[in-house]
Amino acid sequence: MATQSPAKVKIGVLGASGYTGSELVRLLLRHPNIELDLLTADRRAGQEMRAVFPQFSPYKLPTLVTIESIDWTTAGLNLVFCALPHATTQKVVSDLLAKAPKTKVVDLSADFRLHDLAAYARWYGHEHHAPKLQREAVYGLVEVHRTAIKKARLVANPGCYTSCAQLALTPLLKAKAIAPNEIVIDAKSGMTGAGRSAKEEMLFSEVSEGFHAYGVGHHRHMAELDQEFSAAAGREVVVTFTPHLVPMNRCILSTIYVRHTKGKSVEELHAILSKYYAKETFVHVLPFGQTPQTRHVRGSNMTFIGVAKDRVPGRAIVISTLDNLVKGASGQAVQNMNLMLGWPEATGLEQVALFP
Amino acid sequence: MATQSPAKVKIGVLGASGYTGSELVRLLLRHPNIELDLLTADRRAGQEMRAVFPQFSPYKLPTLVTIESIDWTTAGLNLVFCALPHATTQKVVSDLLAKAPKTKVVDLSADFRLHDLAAYARWYGHEHHAPKLQREAVYGLVEVHRTAIKKARLVANPGCYTSCAQLALTPLLKAKAIAPNEIVIDAKSGMTGAGRSAKEEMLFSEVSEGFHAYGVGHHRHMAELDQEFSAAAGREVVVTFTPHLVPMNRCILSTIYVRHTKGKSVEELHAILSKYYAKETFVHVLPFGQTPQTRHVRGSNMTFIGVAKDRVPGRAIVISTLDNLVKGASGQAVQNMNLMLGWPEATGLEQVALFP
Amino acid sequence: MATQSPAKVKIGVLGASGYTGSELVRLLLRHPNIELDLLTADRRAGQEMRAVFPQFSPYKLPTLVTIESIDWTTAGLNLVFCALPHATTQKVVSDLLAKAPKTKVVDLSADFRLHDLAAYARWYGHEHHAPKLQREAVYGLVEVHRTAIKKARLVANPGCYTSCAQLALTPLLKAKAIAPNEIVIDAKSGMTGAGRSAKEEMLFSEVSEGFHAYGVGHHRHMAELDQEFSAAAGREVVVTFTPHLVPMNRCILSTIYVRHTKGKSVEELHAILSKYYAKETFVHVLPFGQTPQTRHVRGSNMTFIGVAKDRVPGRAIVISTLDNLVKGASGQAVQNMNLMLGWPEATGLEQVALFP
Amino acid sequence: MATQSPAKVKIGVLGASGYTGSELVRLLLRHPNIELDLLTADRRAGQEMRAVFPQFSPYKLPTLVTIESIDWTTAGLNLVFCALPHATTQKVVSDLLAKAPKTKVVDLSADFRLHDLAAYARWYGHEHHAPKLQREAVYGLVEVHRTAIKKARLVANPGCYTSCAQLALTPLLKAKAIAPNEIVIDAKSGMTGAGRSAKEEMLFSEVSEGFHAYGVGHHRHMAELDQEFSAAAGREVVVTFTPHLVPMNRCILSTIYVRHTKGKSVEELHAILSKYYAKETFVHVLPFGQTPQTRHVRGSNMTFIGVAKDRVPGRAIVISTLDNLVKGASGQAVQNMNLMLGWPEATGLEQVALFP
Repeated sequence: MATQSPAKVKIGVLGASGYTGSELVRLLLRHPNIELDLLTADRRAGQEMRAVFPQFSPYKLPTLVTIESIDWTTAGLNLVFCALPHATTQKVVSDLLAKAPKTKVVDLSADFRLHDLAAYARWYGHEHHAPKLQREAVYGLVEVHRTAIKKARLVANPGCYTSCAQLALTPLLKAKAIAPNEIVIDAKSGMTGAGRSAKEEMLFSEVSEGFHAYGVGHHRHMAELDQEFSAAAGREVVVTFTPHLVPMNRCILSTIYVRHTKGKSVEELHAILSKYYAKETFVHVLPFGQTPQTRHVRGSNMTFIGVAKDRVPGRAIVISTLDNLVKGASGQAVQNMNLMLGWPEATGLEQVALFP
Repeated sequence: MATQSPAKVKIGVLGASGYTGSELVRLLLRHPNIELDLLTADRRAGQEMRAVFPQFSPYKLPTLVTIESIDWTTAGLNLVFCALPHATTQKVVSDLLAKAPKTKVVDLSADFRLHDLAAYARWYGHEHHAPKLQREAVYGLVEVHRTAIKKARLVANPGCYTSCAQLALTPLLKAKAIAPNEIVIDAKSGMTGAGRSAKEEMLFSEVSEGFHAYGVGHHRHMAELDQEFSAAAGREVVVTFTPHLVPMNRCILSTIYVRHTKGKSVEELHAILSKYYAKETFVHVLPFGQTPQTRHVRGSNMTFIGVAKDRVPGRAIVISTLDNLVKGASGQAVQNMNLMLGWPEATGLEQVALFP
Repeated sequence: MATQSPAKVKIGVLGASGYTGSELVRLLLRHPNIELDLLTADRRAGQEMRAVFPQFSPYKLPTLVTIESIDWTTAGLNLVFCALPHATTQKVVSDLLAKAPKTKVVDLSADFRLHDLAAYARWYGHEHHAPKLQREAVYGLVEVHRTAIKKARLVANPGCYTSCAQLALTPLLKAKAIAPNEIVIDAKSGMTGAGRSAKEEMLFSEVSEGFHAYGVGHHRHMAELDQEFSAAAGREVVVTFTPHLVPMNRCILSTIYVRHTKGKSVEELHAILSKYYAKETFVHVLPFGQTPQTRHVRGSNMTFIGVAKDRVPGRAIVISTLDNLVKGASGQAVQNMNLMLGWPEATGLEQVALFP
Repeated sequence: MATQSPAKVKIGVLGASGYTGSELVRLLLRHPNIELDLLTADRRAGQEMRAVFPQFSPYKLPTLVTIESIDWTTAGLNLVFCALPHATTQKVVSDLLAKAPKTKVVDLSADFRLHDLAAYARWYGHEHHAPKLQREAVYGLVEVHRTAIKKARLVANPGCYTSCAQLALTPLLKAKAIAPNEIVIDAKSGMTGAGRSAKEEMLFSEVSEGFHAYGVGHHRHMAELDQEFSAAAGREVVVTFTPHLVPMNRCILSTIYVRHTKGKSVEELHAILSKYYAKETFVHVLPFGQTPQTRHVRGSNMTFIGVAKDRVPGRAIVISTLDNLVKGASGQAVQNMNLMLGWPEATGLEQVALFP
């Protein structure tokens, strides 16, 4: 069913056998301006994509290859999505951009998200392997950094948990409408957030019919939250953040407890968010008092945000939700690509949520 | 996000507050040739679609109205999808076509599927209220009745269970490749097949973490199976059919046990299906021996079919799967609309399956 | 399989067709000291329990009757569990105790939980129908009110959300180890918490594969939390509380954000809880830093509690979990019965959790 | 909570870190006559059971050890449950019985189920390592082989799929009431049937919200079915058998299509089953026409069987269900132990099913 004309822009996906990789392929198959020229998957090299993800059986796609087998100089790719594991990514992207400096890159790993090399070393336990690229990289949350993304060669696609929290909190922190030192983010994620590698604790029978928190008190996503929230607030912000796993495949919902600053009201928090996102295609603020459900954004690039009054005076509850594989990863990556290549931002991202 | 130009064809959806109704809206929002002009939902009349299905919050859609409030003479609709309950449908479609005889109708209920009025009365316990329309209606399984559908005014969209079984068996019965009196269809459906009405037995806690058969030995879908299989085989065919409920939202998988006729082989059954569907966009036959999973068609209009050899000589196992709300209902209905209005058959139906 | 000797204590269950009712029957069938003499279910009166809950098919149980049909004077019951809806309960229990004043009652509704008649009227919108019984009732959280329960005639079994939060926080509030005005309880419940009545929003397809908050900012359980937390702290406590629904059948997990008081440490919070529950059979405090999962208490009367340090100085995260139908309802009720009738507290409650 | 008196019988569980191992521990913790003296788990040796299965945190249990570390001569165990992988089992049991010939063994693997060494070699691709024990072993489906089990030293606990099908079909085959060459078994299993080893295809996101068949046409359980069905029928029986995976943790449901023999009726099939199981504690035949649901046996040692008439004359649909970890594995194993040690058969197996 895939029709690919030669005039289209040539795209590669590195790491196509994981969930963010397959989600990129799902979205890119429906993107009118591109052709999928390269798919890599080291352990599955030589296989067809349909052997790894049978949902692509009806489509013509490139055979999976190893990254090692690619000659970046002659590959002729306009843009590469990199969905590789942490650390590997730094080396692959360095190599790629050294040999094909005009290729644009959207990286879906955490490797280029932190601007501060010291913070990187502290959270990840080693020096960054590509500090120059680290400095070059633009943090790719479109609704916050749109202008910089348009001119970027290397975009660091944000994490799923952080995207969900940032879209809810950044406008409020920028407006100094909430106390920056009393923020509690209680986040709940579907299981695809844990990736596709075979681990006992991710087996169906381990996670079905149950619920739990993990990484309580210490989770690497916090480094990214700190950086972006501090930038938005213009001062250091350290939030409380607890991730949980829900027995569902997709989506994240963050229940965020905040205190509004003196002189503000909960209704004003809602007004700030509504105004900030009034013209955004992919962030939708619900009427005051209504709160979102994950299932109503599933499979789409949408973020839904709700604001409600707490019964404790001065406190508000902000709830945001997005599909971790779409707006939290691959959809956001395509949105970044659209900006980087000068296309309308929503191209190929018009899918309506799949509910039920 | 919905952009609707005046030149587009005007479409109505009757019964928009059920799951097949919302699935029609999901698909039609992405259809380039139409504008959604009318949405009805008697119990929710006066409400916005976003109150009934919050996933549509970002889209502009007509307010829900009652059917009674519509003046068909002046409604100016080119085509109406009817997703109403059994029996009500007959009256509404009769009235609609009496007042607006040029409007085309795709009906998603069971009301117009049986050609034989006596069979209808036997299975449903009363005379048909619109026998003339019953005779006019074309059975809308595109891959079997494409030519007739193109010319039809009233198309009876097939049932989900029957679509799934027919796509697997019709080519084999037509080719007289299987014994028509030894067919066992063991069908498993997701929960949306039971609709959206509030019943104790459909509560989450009643159906989650479990599995069961229902309607064992007697199920109304059998009338439709009998009609279509007998037509395909050119003789009376009565199959064994047992439906089951799986704790999942969408899709049907049918495990079908057949005996090939003398002189044929299991490999030939596979070859017959492969050839029959070679040029079809929405039916994909897997390589011999491979069998499909529901998740790989979820949200798409695809049907996947696999054929495997049983260890009992002469017997084969044919497994087919489709999304009950898409190819088994609303996607099939849009495919019918495309044919009836002279458009490319796949328009608006290009969504890739959502897995995971 | 049920063997019932005449010397056993006679028990009734009012409201046996709901989930807390069936859970009482499940537990009581294994209780060595009792015989189940009466089961009521107004809408299912005249039916066998196996028609309402087929898991009881192998057991001999009384036929379901209406409450109206019971003559309390001659019923001869030693203890009655009341699992009826709010408001109805007040009338039924008043009538029962007027006619059979020596019968003991464990009530699983919210009707007798609030001591303050004004608070009751404020939260429920009407005067209490049995103010004298309201004053007599003992709040039945065994680990907090054991002594009073032993002497009680009428015990108000606590709510599931409140039990889960109270077991985590009461010892800390009593020890004045946490700031009482900065408590955030983010609670997540399985679907049985919503009961067995047929509502659209509880259908499998509405709640499966998704997650959401409800009653944000206003939930009746708060009245009970206020009462018990204020009593424990010796001052008014108003907490932030947000309930969510998880696509699972059973259990509640509460993620609780607290600040320890000056001079205390997070490790001391853990020590306080460990000491408080050291001799309790049904509350288990995990080693410091470990946090519980719902699945490991499923089907059992256990509560698991974990304490972890937040990265924000002074703050701790306390996570507690229990099975909402057992320790959060029917198991707690049996534990109350055991105390009220002078039996070892764990009798009939020794089931090990069912995982996976 | 575990209280263990010195007079109790000493029990070991080999392979305690898998699901059948943990299920044995769950059941044995409630068994009044035994003490759990030995738990092995090679990869987790040195750890406490609570680290592997946190639901056991409140209980005192032996530390996990390797099998190699055990001196069978001095271990002094009365009975050992062996829940080890295929092939390893043969060597471990040989060694154990050579050194401690008076120890009784209930083996939960497939290693000792086939009496015919040639059949074993054909299905498993190698000669059996302990042919003498193979001949000694008694096939442990209590309801069929009770007398032999009572006297056995080594019992081969049946497979979960085969138990479910055998309990439905054996009485019918023995009574020559169904045609032995036209049996179709369409079986559906929960995910614990696949064990606890980390495989990509068993991850939550791979199996949730979907359904599929596997091993179509060739599955090792067939060898066991052939042996037992042929023995029951007194002639060779080769059935069609297709296993499927349901997104649920526990239980199996088998939908079985049969043709009754001449002179019999579907009602007689029901009567034969009802009579055969009239005095059995753990097999319950539903009233004619009613069919079972997996959820009503979950967590219990019960099997529910239903018989319904097909609309095709002469054909019946028999549906049976059991919990694959209880009656399909560890519950059955405890039932065997009870017989082998001369205790009442139901001791420690009285748990009522957990629904919802």
